Amino acid sequence: MVPAKAISFLMDAERFLVLTHINPDGDGLGSAMAMKCLLERLGKKAEIVIDSEPPEMFAFFTNYEWVRQYGVETDGLEPFNTVISVDAPTIERLGDAAKLIADDANILCIDHHVSAKNFADVNYIDGTASATAQMVYYLASELNIAITPETAEYLYTGIVIDTGRFRFSNTTPDVLHVAGELVKAGADPDKISRHLYYNNTLETTQALGKLLETIELHFNGKVATAHFTHAYMLGDHWKNVDTEGFVNHALSIRGVEVAMLLRETKTGITRVSLRAKGGFDVNELAKIFGGGGHAKAAGLTINEPLEKAKKILLDETERTLKAG
Amino acid sequence: MVPAKAISFLMDAERFLVLTHINPDGDGLGSAMAMKCLLERLGKKAEIVIDSEPPEMFAFFTNYEWVRQYGVETDGLEPFNTVISVDAPTIERLGDAAKLIADDANILCIDHHVSAKNFADVNYIDGTASATAQMVYYLASELNIAITPETAEYLYTGIVIDTGRFRFSNTTPDVLHVAGELVKAGADPDKISRHLYYNNTLETTQALGKLLETIELHFNGKVATAHFTHAYMLGDHWKNVDTEGFVNHALSIRGVEVAMLLRETKTGITRVSLRAKGGFDVNELAKIFGGGGHAKAAGLTINEPLEKAKKILLDETERTLKAG
Repeated sequence: MVPAKAISFLMDAERFLVLTHINPDGDGLGSAMAMKCLLERLGKKAEIVIDSEPPEMFAFFTNYEWVRQYGVETDGLEPFNTVISVDAPTIERLGDAAKLIADDANILCIDHHVSAKNFADVNYIDGTASATAQMVYYLASELNIAITPETAEYLYTGIVIDTGRFRFSNTTPDVLHVAGELVKAGADPDKISRHLYYNNTLETTQALGKLLETIELHFNGKVATAHFTHAYMLGDHWKNVDTEGFVNHALSIRGVEVAMLLRETKTGITRVSLRAKGGFDVNELAKIFGGGGHAKAAGLTINEPLEKAKKILLDETERTLKAG
Repeated sequence: MVPAKAISFLMDAERFLVLTHINPDGDGLGSAMAMKCLLERLGKKAEIVIDSEPPEMFAFFTNYEWVRQYGVETDGLEPFNTVISVDAPTIERLGDAAKLIADDANILCIDHHVSAKNFADVNYIDGTASATAQMVYYLASELNIAITPETAEYLYTGIVIDTGRFRFSNTTPDVLHVAGELVKAGADPDKISRHLYYNNTLETTQALGKLLETIELHFNGKVATAHFTHAYMLGDHWKNVDTEGFVNHALSIRGVEVAMLLRETKTGITRVSLRAKGGFDVNELAKIFGGGGHAKAAGLTINEPLEKAKKILLDETERTLKAG
C-alpha cells in the first residue's frame, strides 16, 4: 500500500521540512511529530513548521517544542529542497509555512483525504485510512522502524482525534488493529484521553452550560438550535472558551437529525455550525447561504443579528425538509 | 486462557439460563445476548432473565425482546439446572433472577472482575480482560463459532461501554484487537455509538446545562462541585433525566482532581457521586461517610440538606487533602 516512491523519497535525502495544515488537529500535528521521529531514526534531520500557534491542547506531547511557528520561530531558516506535507489536501492549507518550500523542491504528500489535490511530486494518498497517522504507521512498518513510545503517542492521538474516539464510521478493523499495535508500543489511551478530553477551562464548561440552556427543538424535534449572543461573547471569560464539540450536545438529543450552533460573532453577523446524523445533508443547506463543508458537518455565515439569522435559517431548513 | 471446564460446561447440557447483574450495563446485557447466540449456534436452548426492566438504552439490539424481566415475563418458567452468570461478581448481584436457579444446579461464572467471588461450580474469571464481552469472544473462538453481525454488535457494545470508548486504562492491545475483529464481523461503531451516546432526552441535555451552571471550584481548583437542588428534581421533567456521566463534565476541567455531584434526592438527604483523576482516592473519602466504591469512582449519602451536606463534605475533603 505504501508507494515505493514514498520510501525512496525518504531514503534519498538528508534534510527535510515537515509541514501540516493551519491550526493543526491531533492528526496533523501527531503525524508531523511522528514523521520527524522516523526521519531521525533513519539518521536524517527534520524541522516541523506550521503557520499558526502550536495548539495548547497538544502541549503534553514529548518534544512539543519541536513545532515551530512560521515567522515567529523560523528566523534564519533557509527554504528546503525536500518537503513532506502531512494531512493537508492542498498547498494553500499549509499557509505561510509553504514559503519555506524552495522553488525546485521535491514534495511528498501524505494524506488520507481522497480530495487531496496532487500538488506534490510524490503522493501517498489513501482514502481508506482513517487518519494520516495510520498511514505514517504503515510507512514505519515498511521501513522496519520500531515505534518508540513517543511516536506511538503521537500516532495514537492522531487516530483518536480523527475517528472521534473510535466512534465515526471510519473506525475500521485496520485502524483498530493499528491502535492496538500503538498501545503495545507504549501509547497510553488513558493519559492521552485525559489530555485531549479532560483538560477544559472552567469557562468552557460554564459556557457549555449556558449554551445547553438555549436549546430549542423545531420541526417535530428533528432540528435543534442553540446559540451564544454577541453580548455573552463580549465578556472577559470568552477568551478562555473553546466551543469545539459543543454542537454535538445538541445533536446527541434523541430524534434530532440536524443541530445548529449560532453565534453572533460581531454585531449583525451570525456564524452557524451545522451537524447532522442520519440522512440530512447539511452541506446542501450551507451552500444556499454561500457556506459549505461536508454532508455531516458544515458552516455558514448570515449577515444578520442572531434572532433574525435564526429565523432565516429555520425558514430555509423547513423548505429543505419539505423538498426532501 | 478459556478453562477447558468452561467449554465442557457448555457442551454437556442442552438448556441454559443466562443471568447478569441488576440494572445491566452494556457489558452485562451484551455478554448475555451473545452467550444465547453462541448456545443457539451449538444447537442448545437458552433464556436470558434479569431482575430489572431491560434498559431502554439497549433497545436497538436485534432480538432485544429475548431479555425477560423476572416476575414480569417469567411466569411458568421452571428453575434451571444449568446456569451461566455473566459480568456479576456475586450471586446477590443477580437479584431475584437467582430464584430461577435450581437447588442442585450447575453454575458457570464468566466475569472480568477480579473481585468475583467463587459462587459458581465452574469459573472463567479473567481480571486482565477489559470486559466480560472480550471473554465471551474468546469463548466463541475456542469453540470455533463464527461471530454473526448481531453477536458482534452485542460484544462490541460491551467493550465500548466498559472501556469508556477506548479511553480507560483497561484499553489494552488485546481488547483493541478483539474490537477490530468484531468490526470485521459486522459490528458498526458509528451505529452503536449513535445509539449509546446520541440518544439523550431533551430534558437530560437541559439538566446538564443546569448542572454546569452550578459548578464551583475549591482548594485552588483541585475540587469541583456541582449540584441539583431538591426543588429542581421535583419537577415533571426529572423523570426523563438520566444523569449518567454528568459528573465527568466537572472532572474534565483542567486541574480538577476530584469532582463531586450532589443531589438532594429527598428533603434533607443528599446523595454524592465522587470521581477522581490522578492520585486522589475517593473511596477513602466516601468511607468516612459510610459510603464506598473504587479509588476513582465512589458514592456516599449525607443526611443533611444540600448546602449543609456540601459544607460537611468539603470540610472533610480539606482535612483529607491536608493529610495526603
